[in-house]
Amino acid sequence: MGLTEIRKVCEVSLEIPAEKQPKLHNRWHPDIPFAGSIKNGETVKIECVDWTGGQIGNNDSADDMKNVDLTRIHYLSGPFEIEGVFDKNNGGGFLDEIYPTAPGILGCAPSAEVSSHFNILKFEAHNFPRVLATWNKREGELIAANKLDRIVAQPPNPQNVHAGSATEDIKEKVGREGARTIPGRPEHGGNCDIKNLSRGSKVYLPVHVKGAKFSVGDLHFSQGDGEISFCGAIEMAGVITINFKVMKNGVADLGMKSPLYLPGPVEPHYGPGRYLTFEGFSVDQHGKQHYMDVTVAYRQTTLRCIEYLRRFGYSDYQVYLLLSCAPVQGHVAGIVDIPNACTTLGLPMDIFDFDISPTGPAKKLDMGNCAYETDVKEGKITDGGKNSEISWGGGLAFKEK
Amino acid sequence: MGLTEIRKVCEVSLEIPAEKQPKLHNRWHPDIPFAGSIKNGETVKIECVDWTGGQIGNNDSADDMKNVDLTRIHYLSGPFEIEGVFDKNNGGGFLDEIYPTAPGILGCAPSAEVSSHFNILKFEAHNFPRVLATWNKREGELIAANKLDRIVAQPPNPQNVHAGSATEDIKEKVGREGARTIPGRPEHGGNCDIKNLSRGSKVYLPVHVKGAKFSVGDLHFSQGDGEISFCGAIEMAGVITINFKVMKNGVADLGMKSPLYLPGPVEPHYGPGRYLTFEGFSVDQHGKQHYMDVTVAYRQTTLRCIEYLRRFGYSDYQVYLLLSCAPVQGHVAGIVDIPNACTTLGLPMDIFDFDISPTGPAKKLDMGNCAYETDVKEGKITDGGKNSEISWGGGLAFKEK
Amino acid sequence: MGLTEIRKVCEVSLEIPAEKQPKLHNRWHPDIPFAGSIKNGETVKIECVDWTGGQIGNNDSADDMKNVDLTRIHYLSGPFEIEGVFDKNNGGGFLDEIYPTAPGILGCAPSAEVSSHFNILKFEAHNFPRVLATWNKREGELIAANKLDRIVAQPPNPQNVHAGSATEDIKEKVGREGARTIPGRPEHGGNCDIKNLSRGSKVYLPVHVKGAKFSVGDLHFSQGDGEISFCGAIEMAGVITINFKVMKNGVADLGMKSPLYLPGPVEPHYGPGRYLTFEGFSVDQHGKQHYMDVTVAYRQTTLRCIEYLRRFGYSDYQVYLLLSCAPVQGHVAGIVDIPNACTTLGLPMDIFDFDISPTGPAKKLDMGNCAYETDVKEGKITDGGKNSEISWGGGLAFKEK
Amino acid sequence: MGLTEIRKVCEVSLEIPAEKQPKLHNRWHPDIPFAGSIKNGETVKIECVDWTGGQIGNNDSADDMKNVDLTRIHYLSGPFEIEGVFDKNNGGGFLDEIYPTAPGILGCAPSAEVSSHFNILKFEAHNFPRVLATWNKREGELIAANKLDRIVAQPPNPQNVHAGSATEDIKEKVGREGARTIPGRPEHGGNCDIKNLSRGSKVYLPVHVKGAKFSVGDLHFSQGDGEISFCGAIEMAGVITINFKVMKNGVADLGMKSPLYLPGPVEPHYGPGRYLTFEGFSVDQHGKQHYMDVTVAYRQTTLRCIEYLRRFGYSDYQVYLLLSCAPVQGHVAGIVDIPNACTTLGLPMDIFDFDISPTGPAKKLDMGNCAYETDVKEGKITDGGKNSEISWGGGLAFKEK
Repeated sequence: MGLTEIRKVCEVSLEIPAEKQPKLHNRWHPDIPFAGSIKNGETVKIECVDWTGGQIGNNDSADDMKNVDLTRIHYLSGPFEIEGVFDKNNGGGFLDEIYPTAPGILGCAPSAEVSSHFNILKFEAHNFPRVLATWNKREGELIAANKLDRIVAQPPNPQNVHAGSATEDIKEKVGREGARTIPGRPEHGGNCDIKNLSRGSKVYLPVHVKGAKFSVGDLHFSQGDGEISFCGAIEMAGVITINFKVMKNGVADLGMKSPLYLPGPVEPHYGPGRYLTFEGFSVDQHGKQHYMDVTVAYRQTTLRCIEYLRRFGYSDYQVYLLLSCAPVQGHVAGIVDIPNACTTLGLPMDIFDFDISPTGPAKKLDMGNCAYETDVKEGKITDGGKNSEISWGGGLAFKEK
Repeated sequence: MGLTEIRKVCEVSLEIPAEKQPKLHNRWHPDIPFAGSIKNGETVKIECVDWTGGQIGNNDSADDMKNVDLTRIHYLSGPFEIEGVFDKNNGGGFLDEIYPTAPGILGCAPSAEVSSHFNILKFEAHNFPRVLATWNKREGELIAANKLDRIVAQPPNPQNVHAGSATEDIKEKVGREGARTIPGRPEHGGNCDIKNLSRGSKVYLPVHVKGAKFSVGDLHFSQGDGEISFCGAIEMAGVITINFKVMKNGVADLGMKSPLYLPGPVEPHYGPGRYLTFEGFSVDQHGKQHYMDVTVAYRQTTLRCIEYLRRFGYSDYQVYLLLSCAPVQGHVAGIVDIPNACTTLGLPMDIFDFDISPTGPAKKLDMGNCAYETDVKEGKITDGGKNSEISWGGGLAFKEK
Repeated sequence: MGLTEIRKVCEVSLEIPAEKQPKLHNRWHPDIPFAGSIKNGETVKIECVDWTGGQIGNNDSADDMKNVDLTRIHYLSGPFEIEGVFDKNNGGGFLDEIYPTAPGILGCAPSAEVSSHFNILKFEAHNFPRVLATWNKREGELIAANKLDRIVAQPPNPQNVHAGSATEDIKEKVGREGARTIPGRPEHGGNCDIKNLSRGSKVYLPVHVKGAKFSVGDLHFSQGDGEISFCGAIEMAGVITINFKVMKNGVADLGMKSPLYLPGPVEPHYGPGRYLTFEGFSVDQHGKQHYMDVTVAYRQTTLRCIEYLRRFGYSDYQVYLLLSCAPVQGHVAGIVDIPNACTTLGLPMDIFDFDISPTGPAKKLDMGNCAYETDVKEGKITDGGKNSEISWGGGLAFKEK
Repeated sequence: MGLTEIRKVCEVSLEIPAEKQPKLHNRWHPDIPFAGSIKNGETVKIECVDWTGGQIGNNDSADDMKNVDLTRIHYLSGPFEIEGVFDKNNGGGFLDEIYPTAPGILGCAPSAEVSSHFNILKFEAHNFPRVLATWNKREGELIAANKLDRIVAQPPNPQNVHAGSATEDIKEKVGREGARTIPGRPEHGGNCDIKNLSRGSKVYLPVHVKGAKFSVGDLHFSQGDGEISFCGAIEMAGVITINFKVMKNGVADLGMKSPLYLPGPVEPHYGPGRYLTFEGFSVDQHGKQHYMDVTVAYRQTTLRCIEYLRRFGYSDYQVYLLLSCAPVQGHVAGIVDIPNACTTLGLPMDIFDFDISPTGPAKKLDMGNCAYETDVKEGKITDGGKNSEISWGGGLAFKEK
């Protein structure tokens, strides 16, 4: 057999604004028109833009990041029609009340041999209207009940909606109803940001609409468990090579409510004994005891690692960024010994070109700086004040202290 | 060099009740007398009882577990004096306000060549009075504020206190003030239940009192991330072989607030592509959206796995137990895309002797039963009712439905 | 299900001489009587003596090794009858001319959960008379043609033959015809000394006689690829737990001429980047070019590692022993670029408690000595003279230089 | 810091014949002029042609391979001057008689973050005249003594010599004296074809001439241990990104006679239990016993794997090719139990998209064909005749049977 060209089903431009490109979109809505069609069993190439749609320039300032227009991010390539996926009369079974028309499942296996060097893929199959309504209702309730001094979820927002090649009428509807593409969600996957979802993975996605309406985007070159500083993964545009197979009746056959996957064989491989491992518990930095709270424990675990690496001359923000993009292993270690959940963070010592093992006092090295905003000076993530909080979901922008 | 016998610093009996044995204790308190002395640099063997102190018989009923007296569990061997560990005038530095007399650090390296086949060790260095007071205060506040219909923490309790070889006066004081040994805590480690803390690991523990007062116990033969069903690890008595090194000024030198460790090289090794991986999000089984709640997400992830394996003929409780003792990988995957945290659970497919890969409908096999209490019939962990909740911190005892 | 005792099918003594114990034998011969019987599907425990049958004392001299009587070594436990294995009329197929009566195959899966901490198992199924004749003929031809100044193979030898519980007549016949148990052989496995044949492995062995006549022995605690100094593995007596399954028609079904195996999941796990890797080629230490000779290349590779570690204060013989018992990875790297085969030896840097990475001049440390014979002083493995040769198949005994 | 462009020190063309390009060469000789200069510490990109210099067309016939002109292959990019490498007065020490002017060592660390997806790099530092004379002498002696019916080494050959930008006089000298670039050699590395010498590796090369004269080429996309069918790796042209550091006095400091390397962390990662492992011994396919011959044993091991996979419908030649390019693990398992060396070949079962585990008879599938020459029909690698020999160093061309 000679070489067979792999069909490129989507081309995007890094020069043209994302919102002008008909094969991109930044909302989940079943009415967004197909951007192309893929056969059952076919392998295709799909080009993707980076998560900011090109808003970040090549310079040494963090201002571009600070000034990112968050209504114009997270554009996905698609939605693509997967042929052979029908929307009714062949699903059925025990999940009918959840997925009344779920017909099957979509297995996607990026070809390890062909796809490029990025680490993270995000696969998402488009949503059924009822699922969309469910999302808007439950996230709306969270927003309504919110007493925190931060944004907890993003409701439908017509501003800067991009519905691909939709007509103005459809676009207006998508803006009013469409879910933002930023979070992952249990019913379809979405923006899970799982570091092992990489080259050679096989992903199993439930399908909710005829043609599947598969979308993909927001590639990461490298990421750690949690992607803790929000935009701290090494973000990239890229081309993925992906194979599609329809599994008829798959949702029922696999008893599946959320996506499944099998990782590929190429994740960085350091050996268990090379992970310097930090522990954290459900006691916050103010000394308050929480009940079995894994989120609190993982925050504390991360702080322990920041404190440890700070000794070598890194600023806290440098470590914060490092932990977001390096292949750190974040584990839920113990969750039954009341009142403390215990989480661990394994830091691969071999990613450093000097010895970070716990052998004694650290020698401070000149580590340079990470990029800061023009009105900010370097600071420390302390235990105390509000400014020092690790910004879960808050991004990197911060004020001078 | 000929063979040198490794000294056994602690012998325990599986016949004599734990509360009668002077080298065991079930409270953290600085006044518990030393159970023996270990030199800096020495390697010793330490015998440990199982976590119930022998309350579980060899039979097919779960009644022993249901009837476990929870005031008579989690006895540790020790506390041992580590020579060369002084309690003041040589600590100092930036953590003084937290650990005013912390003098050093204790590195423990179980010898991979010698120690036996269990997977999990729990290392704990005894606590300074001020730390103890801190614990009692913060856990007491949690108990006082509790509105949940469950026990959220266990305060000092004189009932069945065991303070080793202490006099009656000391024992009475320990009962009044001593912390329960059940949870892990950030200041000293304690019962972390980390599955990778196993053969060949090196653990770095902060020291708070003269002589360190090192204790160890509650060995696990095998455990998964989270030990999700509380007593679901394969529990065991055993002998560990352990080497001690004092690192002077170590707490300050390493900038350490919680224990650190380096895992050993012998964890089960399956390759990334052999972990069937489930995803879960911060939406609970009632459809309620939580804000970035990792605990909710990990519960959902675990439920996804139970639903998947149920198809092969396992009862839900069998899977629940399986996930507690098998080497599953629980990861904090994404924690920045509001409102959903995403966690994953990797299930090693190679621990099964039949194919569990997601290739189609499952063939139900006869899986027998796990042990139930005499007044319970087999049931299902459903999405709905209160009885079906995964019992975080609650153990396996459940009512008939 | 309560605990079921695993049946111990063989007990041996470390006090009684091996040649007096009826469940041991040191020859391959189909007439050696069964030492016990095991059901198809049964899991049993089998006790084994060490390879010298107890000739090595606990002392600091190598004289015991030098004086080992090589006619009284390598006693195996067995042979055991595996029920359900018949010797004719149900084999057949394409390997008839090689195994005319081969009926099936024996799959052995040591239980990872139960078996102890040794690394190496040696499985062997007893031989058909025609296979035995083949061995004696082909090894006899090698001996007859030998022009090397060393023993190249060991023919049948009546001296110190041990045929288990055989009668004197049978014993005399076994002495005359029986093959030595020292080498591995393609038809049945035998003493392969494969470092990955360890806990949790599944081994597939061809069967040549009714009842299989399974034997096992010569356990190793730890070993590197090649076991390069002959008796350099850490040898041990021990108990193995093993499960047997008969695979009817297996030899034909699997197209098998030599044993197959699947390693267990517990080999030491260091990560590829932690193996300092040496290269060697088909040019010997006298500068002579050999044609694609992998044996020469692997010898050279090993010498490169000895030279490297020598710089840290080890004697050459210490390294020689170290490479035999540490989990080094010996690879056939390139075998097609005439005239040089290339082999590599990966040395796990993490087994050392100091840094051996190639960062500059080494600091010589006091490494003590390995045990020498009483008439030998410490020496060096040089490139030149005959005394310095790495003793493939020659053991550790050497003369003063 | 903004992005810094990595300098490309060598561009090659896939359109222009290799012998016309001044930055390529196909001989080792110290007089070949520098093709460029690289600073100590610099990271550069180097373009390379494939090993045939473009002689293979994109078609379904093996005739291109059969007709490859073997005097016009294995062109390397370079030689490059590494600044800071001097050729005398700063080496010295214990290897003077071998490397009288060896000044240092060259550590090359391909940047894992930047370099592309190929698996195999070949690094080579140019040779000192005395080393060159040594090569020609010892390989000439092998050729003179050859009684095999095959080419055992390739002496200097003026035909189609390419000496980069050399003058005609130099080129004539290089043709007369220069060593072929095809084999690896112990003194400098060369064409080692080691499958783990890939992304992220750090290679330590001895330096023999001023400026080092570093060359690189013959990239492989994927390869198994041994590259057993000669050109069976997936060959490619490509661009490598590589960093250079000079280690003064390194040859003496590291006691190094042949190159060393540390693999990168990204080799395919399957877990030990997923390698179906075949055993082979020093008994050839004619039943002849060889003495501890690892080459014979590895050939037999490979044949066992071919026989096993043949059952699934592959032709022998398909498997032969597969084993050359798939990441199989070839180990020297046992080399001390006379007369049999034992080697193993681990085949990762997870590279197949159907189950190849040893569970019973295989179902033959339609596997298509590999490309054959126009005058050849598909055949089998049998045990017997001369035609069936595995062609170590012989390539894929074969005659009809």
